[in-house]
Formats: sequence, structure tokens, C-alpha cells
Amino acid sequence: MKRLYFHRDSKRGIAGTYSWLTDEVRELGEALNDNDKEALEREFADVIAWLASLANVTGVDLERSALDKYTNRCPKCKHSPCECTF
Amino acid sequence: MKRLYFHRDSKRGIAGTYSWLTDEVRELGEALNDNDKEALEREFADVIAWLASLANVTGVDLERSALDKYTNRCPKCKHSPCECTF
Repeated sequence: MKRLYFHRDSKRGIAGTYSWLTDEVRELGEALNDNDKEALEREFADVIAWLASLANVTGVDLERSALDKYTNRCPKCKHSPCECTF
Repeated sequence: MKRLYFHRDSKRGIAGTYSWLTDEVRELGEALNDNDKEALEREFADVIAWLASLANVTGVDLERSALDKYTNRCPKCKHSPCECTF
């Protein structure tokens, strides 16, 4: 993802890339209401692609960040499976 | 992620889980303006965690979806690196 898009994303900047991410999250929300599994899968792919782009332009290692916070236990309640009630 | 949260997420449902995702995306946007790299990494981790939760409750394989759409070429312009101008 970085090789594919970094050049383009770095020109767009952080604010512009975040704006695209929020658009894709909105489209994902709309796709949740349709009964089209393949379209829904494409919207999930778009959101994760823009999230990865945003991580690249901000210098964050997305995979590392996720693994650091979410290991085998819930970071809030410390249980596995999570027992949080919210 | 599925083992950790599926039980809880399936009780919350799709709309509730999507609502949490949008909250986390908003928090990520706020963290972009701060100068705290570790806090930013945690916000990225939260967004991807809720995106994974939402994929689980909707029966979507998030990793598979991303790989299906984003292989080695941009799905829009077909180039690598991407040459789209938006």
C-alpha cells in the first residue's frame, strides 16, 4: 500500500487524506444498509486503504500500532474474550 | 480480534458498532492536530479495531476484502505506483 500510494498521498497531505477517509467511512455506513455483500466488501477495502494511506503520510506504522495496543487481551478490561459492557 | 470481541460486538449489533467506528474516526482526526505520536498511534489502533469488529458482525473478511481490491496495482488507474490525480 505504501509503495502504491505514498507518492500521491504525500502530495495530498494529512488533512486531504483524512477527508477522503471520512468520505469512505460514510460510504461504508450507507453500504451497511444495502443487501450487497460484494459492494460492502469493497467499501471495507476502501476504508482500510485510506486508513493505511493516512498512517503513511503521518509516519505511523498501522500494523505495529494495532498489534501494540491489541494483543491477546482487551486493553480496557484485560480479559479475553473482552468483558466490557459498553 | 474476532476471538476477543465477537461475543460483545454481536450483542451491540451493526448500527451500534458503526457508531463506535465513527466516534473513533473523529478522535483520530483530533489526534492528527496534536503533536503526540504515541496518542496518534493509539487512535489508529482504535479505528482499525472497530473496523475489524464491524467486519466481524457483518460477516466480512476484512483482510480478504482489502487484498481482493488492492493487489499490486491501483484499482482505478491500474498503475503502480498509482497515477490518479485526485
